[in-house]
Amino acid sequence: MIDLNADLGEGLGPWRLGDDLALMSIVSSANVACGFHAGDPVIMRRTCAAAVERGVVIGAQVSYRDLSGFGRREMDVAPEELTAEVLYQIAALDGIARAEGDRVRYVKPHGALYNRIVRDPVQAEAVAAAVEAYDPGLPVLTLPGSALHQVTDLTIVNECFADRAYTPAGTLVSRREPGAVIEDVAQVTERALRMAVEGVVEATDGTRIRVDARSICVHGDTPGAVGLAQAVRRSLEEAGVPLKAFA
Amino acid sequence: MIDLNADLGEGLGPWRLGDDLALMSIVSSANVACGFHAGDPVIMRRTCAAAVERGVVIGAQVSYRDLSGFGRREMDVAPEELTAEVLYQIAALDGIARAEGDRVRYVKPHGALYNRIVRDPVQAEAVAAAVEAYDPGLPVLTLPGSALHQVTDLTIVNECFADRAYTPAGTLVSRREPGAVIEDVAQVTERALRMAVEGVVEATDGTRIRVDARSICVHGDTPGAVGLAQAVRRSLEEAGVPLKAFA
Amino acid sequence: MIDLNADLGEGLGPWRLGDDLALMSIVSSANVACGFHAGDPVIMRRTCAAAVERGVVIGAQVSYRDLSGFGRREMDVAPEELTAEVLYQIAALDGIARAEGDRVRYVKPHGALYNRIVRDPVQAEAVAAAVEAYDPGLPVLTLPGSALHQVTDLTIVNECFADRAYTPAGTLVSRREPGAVIEDVAQVTERALRMAVEGVVEATDGTRIRVDARSICVHGDTPGAVGLAQAVRRSLEEAGVPLKAFA
Amino acid sequence: MIDLNADLGEGLGPWRLGDDLALMSIVSSANVACGFHAGDPVIMRRTCAAAVERGVVIGAQVSYRDLSGFGRREMDVAPEELTAEVLYQIAALDGIARAEGDRVRYVKPHGALYNRIVRDPVQAEAVAAAVEAYDPGLPVLTLPGSALHQVTDLTIVNECFADRAYTPAGTLVSRREPGAVIEDVAQVTERALRMAVEGVVEATDGTRIRVDARSICVHGDTPGAVGLAQAVRRSLEEAGVPLKAFA
Repeated sequence: MIDLNADLGEGLGPWRLGDDLALMSIVSSANVACGFHAGDPVIMRRTCAAAVERGVVIGAQVSYRDLSGFGRREMDVAPEELTAEVLYQIAALDGIARAEGDRVRYVKPHGALYNRIVRDPVQAEAVAAAVEAYDPGLPVLTLPGSALHQVTDLTIVNECFADRAYTPAGTLVSRREPGAVIEDVAQVTERALRMAVEGVVEATDGTRIRVDARSICVHGDTPGAVGLAQAVRRSLEEAGVPLKAFA
Repeated sequence: MIDLNADLGEGLGPWRLGDDLALMSIVSSANVACGFHAGDPVIMRRTCAAAVERGVVIGAQVSYRDLSGFGRREMDVAPEELTAEVLYQIAALDGIARAEGDRVRYVKPHGALYNRIVRDPVQAEAVAAAVEAYDPGLPVLTLPGSALHQVTDLTIVNECFADRAYTPAGTLVSRREPGAVIEDVAQVTERALRMAVEGVVEATDGTRIRVDARSICVHGDTPGAVGLAQAVRRSLEEAGVPLKAFA
Repeated sequence: MIDLNADLGEGLGPWRLGDDLALMSIVSSANVACGFHAGDPVIMRRTCAAAVERGVVIGAQVSYRDLSGFGRREMDVAPEELTAEVLYQIAALDGIARAEGDRVRYVKPHGALYNRIVRDPVQAEAVAAAVEAYDPGLPVLTLPGSALHQVTDLTIVNECFADRAYTPAGTLVSRREPGAVIEDVAQVTERALRMAVEGVVEATDGTRIRVDARSICVHGDTPGAVGLAQAVRRSLEEAGVPLKAFA
Repeated sequence: MIDLNADLGEGLGPWRLGDDLALMSIVSSANVACGFHAGDPVIMRRTCAAAVERGVVIGAQVSYRDLSGFGRREMDVAPEELTAEVLYQIAALDGIARAEGDRVRYVKPHGALYNRIVRDPVQAEAVAAAVEAYDPGLPVLTLPGSALHQVTDLTIVNECFADRAYTPAGTLVSRREPGAVIEDVAQVTERALRMAVEGVVEATDGTRIRVDARSICVHGDTPGAVGLAQAVRRSLEEAGVPLKAFA
């Protein structure tokens, strides 16, 4: 059993990123932007409505407050501020999700914040404190090996990436290095399948490493990406792997 | 029985407006800024904590999205947008209030939005739709005669202003006209008392008009204003008028 | 002799609107967004660089401060504020344009501000005051009949729209009405030609009206729009009408 | 001969920080906020007008784009972005200053950006590139020992702080440590005098260290701070040290 998650609702005003409705028909969990890196209240509401209509689970994709940088720039935010900012975002999206008939069922930090809390226990704890304050029952999506695992009693759910190369240490190869992103459909679907069925992936040096993930992250910001996500889903279905949200 | 309400938490980052803690010890209801005209998540959280500590009721002071204009500039926002923006703000503050042990118990539009919905049924209905979507049990604070009364089944609560001159028609004299704001302590406390006890106020031409209000709005953005609010509260107490939140 | 102008650089962070490079090869004047409704400093700089490379004239597309509403919502901004906000935008873009080897050579208000100053002399004068304060030699692009003509000694340049229907009074048919936007290529190019050569356009009732315009505005926010703009340019060239910026 | 500089115009909308007009009568150089950490176009214009009226030199106080964090949170901004953002700010303020009859005569990075470029040559070079692109004649105010000195041919001007303790290595004692800020008026004025006349200051261990500064930074965000700045200026005047802007 595996979950597919994707970032959704990452527009602002007249701008859009990716084909939300196409992705929404592929994934089981939607990481909905909450207005700090992307997403305005109208887009948030429409995205929640689309998710509810399709039975896709809604998660809060929380971020640093950095619209013009799309949350991709690391920030030295003090813990009290970070906790309050994350709490604000979860609550705002949850209210909108409830108005559409469902609610926020998990949290996934976005961009630079996602990467930062993998290695920074202080910011990890600040994010966890926000989730605990809002609803200690909400799971948080992150990487295995994230500092989050050490600093909280929240349910932490691991994810993996079928289209990204892994180092022998089990971390992602940096996007700056060649071969970091895998675009070959056959290769990506084969990796997704092994991740879901055997729980392993082959690292760049051929080592088999455990990914230990309950969810696979797919992308939708290019036409090719949507096709890739569709192929991953189809190959999982054909292999009889049940697609099921974790939350 | 009367309520005293005031705008609170109207800072941003390093900036503050008025003496929040002093006002918090005077009023029974706190209109807490939600981040669209003022208020950041840290200030919102501290303001809610201070309100909970003192037993002051928390209301969501919702606004147009206009930080640099402090929500004082009217905007032609489409109904769908306005509803989503107001819903976002109520939900964000409610999540923060709940993290501090209470919750949002009413809604009060701010500044230009407050004035606009008095006369514009379209924007009034958009605001009402947000409250209905979030929690139809939440009352909304406005003026008697507001368009809100016509467009919704929500509980609408009227407020009045002890330090503002009234026209014979029962509306506020514009701040641009001389005598619009009353600063004399004795006069203000006497008006507050009549408003609370008899439900009337004397208009500029001497006419007695009904204010029909369950709450008196006081201000705190100047040192004098805090003293005035304090005097209003004391004179109500000395007259035996119970101070009691409406929500 | 005619000018073609288009809105360019209307992205933000990761978001884009329209195919800037395609349009840049068609028009003679680029209305570059200055960061208040769209455009961040990186996009502004890249857009100016592309304009300079192609010999396209740079204009400052100034707006209300409303990123999430894309400057499409009318705002009641006080004159002193509006003047300062417009001055800020022109200066910021001019500095960037100069760093790329050219400079801002005209001003075109955007969206709701564009429409507002057509009929509101107070805001029109506030915009004019900003241009006068920055550089009284800069022309401003607007509609014939705009209030701008009445309130300033600046050079005011009129524009027209080949893909929009005109009322017999010479104003644009509202986008909310059917037939407001003309999509047929042959019809649009024929209108553009008559606008450029004869200075007239046929209104919805068949009346010939004078457009009195030195520039035709084309759009690029859809793939079809770019093709249309390209067709307009080609038909002008084939008719021997010189394409020449007004500034 | 010495310069006194202070941060000015650090308000937003209805908010203010410190007593700008009092400080403006004390300093010879005004670091005017440019809208990214504080300052809106109206405040920028009024601040420039006040500076011009008093003959105070105007500098651009450029910052990370972080209004709600007041530019105090370090950000990992890519060099191309940082250069464009700084260029945008200098240009915007310069346009406003010129509208008031003067112009920007130097640049001083603010807050977290100020500290970052002391030790990070990549961001230092990005800031320098913006100044070079706008006007290579503009000096930049920083600390002796800043990475800026290594990465650019711009004129770099050093400043010192009369109210801050210095380590024997010549750096400022962190604000988190006791004794970092000196509040005693006699002590501060005596230090300012030695800085101006002898070019030295006594470190925490009694060592005399060279400050090598052409400007002393004073603050105005508390009533006490303004009094301190006034005392520093008076003691310099009484000692016959000419107060003279560096730019």
